[in-house]
Amino acid sequence: MGVADNTELAALRAQQHTTRRATVAAMEHILYTPYPLLDHGFIRVIDYMGDDSAIVQAARVSYGSGTKKASTDAALIQYLMRHWHSTPFEMCELKLHVKLPIFVARQWIRHRTANVNEYSARYSTLDKEFYIPAPEQLAVQSASNRQGRGNILAPDENARVIALLKADAEHVYKSYTDMLNQDENGEPLDPSKDGLARELARMNLTLNYYTQWYWKIDLHNLFHFVRLRADSHAQYEIRVYADVLLDILQKWVPTAFAAFKEYRLGGVQLSATAWQIIKKQLAGETITEATSGLGKREWSELQALLNA
Amino acid sequence: MGVADNTELAALRAQQHTTRRATVAAMEHILYTPYPLLDHGFIRVIDYMGDDSAIVQAARVSYGSGTKKASTDAALIQYLMRHWHSTPFEMCELKLHVKLPIFVARQWIRHRTANVNEYSARYSTLDKEFYIPAPEQLAVQSASNRQGRGNILAPDENARVIALLKADAEHVYKSYTDMLNQDENGEPLDPSKDGLARELARMNLTLNYYTQWYWKIDLHNLFHFVRLRADSHAQYEIRVYADVLLDILQKWVPTAFAAFKEYRLGGVQLSATAWQIIKKQLAGETITEATSGLGKREWSELQALLNA
Amino acid sequence: MGVADNTELAALRAQQHTTRRATVAAMEHILYTPYPLLDHGFIRVIDYMGDDSAIVQAARVSYGSGTKKASTDAALIQYLMRHWHSTPFEMCELKLHVKLPIFVARQWIRHRTANVNEYSARYSTLDKEFYIPAPEQLAVQSASNRQGRGNILAPDENARVIALLKADAEHVYKSYTDMLNQDENGEPLDPSKDGLARELARMNLTLNYYTQWYWKIDLHNLFHFVRLRADSHAQYEIRVYADVLLDILQKWVPTAFAAFKEYRLGGVQLSATAWQIIKKQLAGETITEATSGLGKREWSELQALLNA
Amino acid sequence: MGVADNTELAALRAQQHTTRRATVAAMEHILYTPYPLLDHGFIRVIDYMGDDSAIVQAARVSYGSGTKKASTDAALIQYLMRHWHSTPFEMCELKLHVKLPIFVARQWIRHRTANVNEYSARYSTLDKEFYIPAPEQLAVQSASNRQGRGNILAPDENARVIALLKADAEHVYKSYTDMLNQDENGEPLDPSKDGLARELARMNLTLNYYTQWYWKIDLHNLFHFVRLRADSHAQYEIRVYADVLLDILQKWVPTAFAAFKEYRLGGVQLSATAWQIIKKQLAGETITEATSGLGKREWSELQALLNA
Repeated sequence: MGVADNTELAALRAQQHTTRRATVAAMEHILYTPYPLLDHGFIRVIDYMGDDSAIVQAARVSYGSGTKKASTDAALIQYLMRHWHSTPFEMCELKLHVKLPIFVARQWIRHRTANVNEYSARYSTLDKEFYIPAPEQLAVQSASNRQGRGNILAPDENARVIALLKADAEHVYKSYTDMLNQDENGEPLDPSKDGLARELARMNLTLNYYTQWYWKIDLHNLFHFVRLRADSHAQYEIRVYADVLLDILQKWVPTAFAAFKEYRLGGVQLSATAWQIIKKQLAGETITEATSGLGKREWSELQALLNA
Repeated sequence: MGVADNTELAALRAQQHTTRRATVAAMEHILYTPYPLLDHGFIRVIDYMGDDSAIVQAARVSYGSGTKKASTDAALIQYLMRHWHSTPFEMCELKLHVKLPIFVARQWIRHRTANVNEYSARYSTLDKEFYIPAPEQLAVQSASNRQGRGNILAPDENARVIALLKADAEHVYKSYTDMLNQDENGEPLDPSKDGLARELARMNLTLNYYTQWYWKIDLHNLFHFVRLRADSHAQYEIRVYADVLLDILQKWVPTAFAAFKEYRLGGVQLSATAWQIIKKQLAGETITEATSGLGKREWSELQALLNA
Repeated sequence: MGVADNTELAALRAQQHTTRRATVAAMEHILYTPYPLLDHGFIRVIDYMGDDSAIVQAARVSYGSGTKKASTDAALIQYLMRHWHSTPFEMCELKLHVKLPIFVARQWIRHRTANVNEYSARYSTLDKEFYIPAPEQLAVQSASNRQGRGNILAPDENARVIALLKADAEHVYKSYTDMLNQDENGEPLDPSKDGLARELARMNLTLNYYTQWYWKIDLHNLFHFVRLRADSHAQYEIRVYADVLLDILQKWVPTAFAAFKEYRLGGVQLSATAWQIIKKQLAGETITEATSGLGKREWSELQALLNA
Repeated sequence: MGVADNTELAALRAQQHTTRRATVAAMEHILYTPYPLLDHGFIRVIDYMGDDSAIVQAARVSYGSGTKKASTDAALIQYLMRHWHSTPFEMCELKLHVKLPIFVARQWIRHRTANVNEYSARYSTLDKEFYIPAPEQLAVQSASNRQGRGNILAPDENARVIALLKADAEHVYKSYTDMLNQDENGEPLDPSKDGLARELARMNLTLNYYTQWYWKIDLHNLFHFVRLRADSHAQYEIRVYADVLLDILQKWVPTAFAAFKEYRLGGVQLSATAWQIIKKQLAGETITEATSGLGKREWSELQALLNA
């Protein structure tokens, strides 16, 4: 487990085939090479299908000669994105190899419209690799947001937490290998006895241990994943993965990605009431929280959008 | 609409890219070239992701070092297929361009685990292309099977039916273009008046008119589709498409396809009762329909399997 | 085929059971009773699972004691809707019996996240029921919108189109029963000969013939369906079904439905550029199409929103 | 967190509504009452939609008058099950509240065709509840099956492992509440300082801690889940949940469940080669492993089936 070693990676990267399929030079460039993430994690692209043209090609099948004369490819992709015509984006597919802490994997897997092959700790022993946050990521519980973080922990408390996390992860791994009757090289500690079944021993590991999987998803669902997970409300530890995906998307389908930024990432959604407020303000009316008809939280969210 | 013309196909086939991705020579060979089907239909491969090795690669991520020493790739693929470990097969993906009669498309779309972009008759006019069965496909309603066909229609009745189907398809298309106020070249029949909206006029076409779509699916779900639609109980008009898919599968993933034939297509499923019968027969007992505990239909299905 | 007859409906409606499950009086009231639609279509509710409280109940499992003190049920549901927390809405389920023209069914089935059992014309003969638009629905092709309708057809052309649609539907049905060798009561026209297999004969029917299905979907996906199909750009013939669904939603989950109207149906989505324009206008700047950075179509869409 | 207290359960169970919907007395009887599982887990039924008749009702919409005269409901359900006509089974839906160890939840969630609301340890603190296997479940790693268990651990080793698991789970929980700055009642340990954010602290818990969720699935996919997870190769800790599901299925849809046992649970699947062997043996030939054409493992699997 862990990143394929340098020899294997070099072999994969050295292969050169000839193909008639849609090919993206920037993706070929990063193929098989891990983007390092957190302290032991990574994302690397294993395969991709399609490019910006593949989106257009599928859309033109749907709309037939109706779109032929029309417009440039970029204009068509913008139109599709603006009007939530999602199926042409489903015609592109991405396959990744991802290494990530188990508690991150548990958030990630909630997205059901993907294919997954995860490392099985029933079949094989997990490596001794666990996530310890960098000090600047150790934040107190937010007082205003039940699922968020507040300020960074004070330095001494910060150091204490890191020491606790490390010590506990080391400790449970020792018990894990102990119960398995294995030393660090996978050899029996005591050749005269049997170890506990792997499917049982694994339950003693903490949720910051790393797992890994192959994950395959179409472009439409990848955009959806990234929109939720690159959001500022997402937990930092999954957001860093989403940020790498943004970079990959930019390389893979630059035109679709630009439309995604314009209409999704950078766009705004307003409620019926909020939109009425905007229209009144444009007409010269003065609206206050009290006269807005919005609750306190929605009012401040709207102000935040206006001041962003 | 219709097969891309020769110039466009030649251009697609002429492109040559260099890639580090898994590549299958037999698939490169058939890429973009239509397999003709029925009288106007076709399937052509637009793109593919992965090969036999990609299945193994994903499986080895799941099973880790546990499988490393083990066995050949073929043995691993057989193991996965035998034990219904479906996720490694989901790591391969196929994209097709298919042209097919609407009544076939309506069966096909029941398989929900695929991506689809269909030609829209709201946006564009449908071509005058409809399916007329070959005489040897015109069969009477089966007496024993409510959803099946019996013998071929007698020659004069056969000719009468073909004439009816043709005349009606011609007739409704004439009304269609009439309502659209279009001639065969898409020009107004009467420039002084407007035509009916396409989204309305299309309702006058019969279900044997051809539609087309891009269809993308992973290998696991494609195997499932093919198992149902290449079956002898499937309607002939969809079975011919499934038969072409069998040929494509053979070219694309020959090892997985061999396992699919061994464990699915050529395998059998027996009920608890049928399996008890087999075991008693192997032990020397004589079992008759009366003593079998099976209903009439299941008994004859079992006999058919035994005599196949 | 067709609406269950009065006796059967009365029997279903007459049954009275005692249950501990969540029950909605307004839904019990409409259970099994068809809403008539178009000329022969309908929607009727067959079963439902959950109510507004079931959404809250599921959300409170996710958020634990964190939400207990918080807020009213309505405030929680609004919060979930506003922040796209879709899974609690998936905990409610609706099952419908729908009768609809085949060309509408073909749009409807594009929504893949539902369960469907459709009437099979391989097993049984289709009734002679086809859709003929009301005169006020017969519109010319829109000049500005390739998938839309413009003005109503002039009266004489209108009458001509209706006559054509009727005559053709009658004509193809006659051929259909002829090929099946069946009279209107399903008896052989000519007892001395066999009819064509149903799976073949059905291809001669036009797309305005009615089909029917059971359709089951969760509340989150139903909201998504309704948002797309109750939209003013959706084809009239599917929009009337979506409008009935709005009425059912109002009865079933009034609180969630109110949130859906506030944040989805009545809300607006703006691109990054459009939002910058709004902010500049609020700051007193004058923006014209020329200085907006928007294309002609997006500019007019924004003006339409502002003037709505 | 944990089972709703007695008061709340009694209130839910005490409610009595009148409904026209399909109702199953045996399900009403168990509604809301937890089935206890492992040391702290449970399953309880929260809601259900449909019954055996709902399957038949949906199937009769598909097959129309073709099935009306036919057969009893049981015969129709058997036919559907035998021929993998899965959509009528999708017309029933079950909603459960499940409490289970996290490592079990990670297997369970691999089934993507369900709706889930899981307890979030970002929002709320996890209770101090972890799974410790009963001594008779502590088995050594199987030598022959990389994902299985062998014999029970020797008594002293058994006791040692239980002590280790307990001590480590206690230990990491102490660190967890320590980092959160919370005592057992959720009050600050040290009111002068802030605790670590919950979304971070949770990573220090081991995989045998309990989580809980609402889980909703249709009957077809539930059968699939149960077939995989009640299998003798499934891990014991998920199999006990599947066994309770078998009991619930028996109460809910007794006819469909009987067909499921006959055609799935108790049925067998044979490869093409295995079936040829059976046919040769029935014809009097003697087949040995050497002449069978099967690999060693498949040969012994076939022998196991024959001797079961």
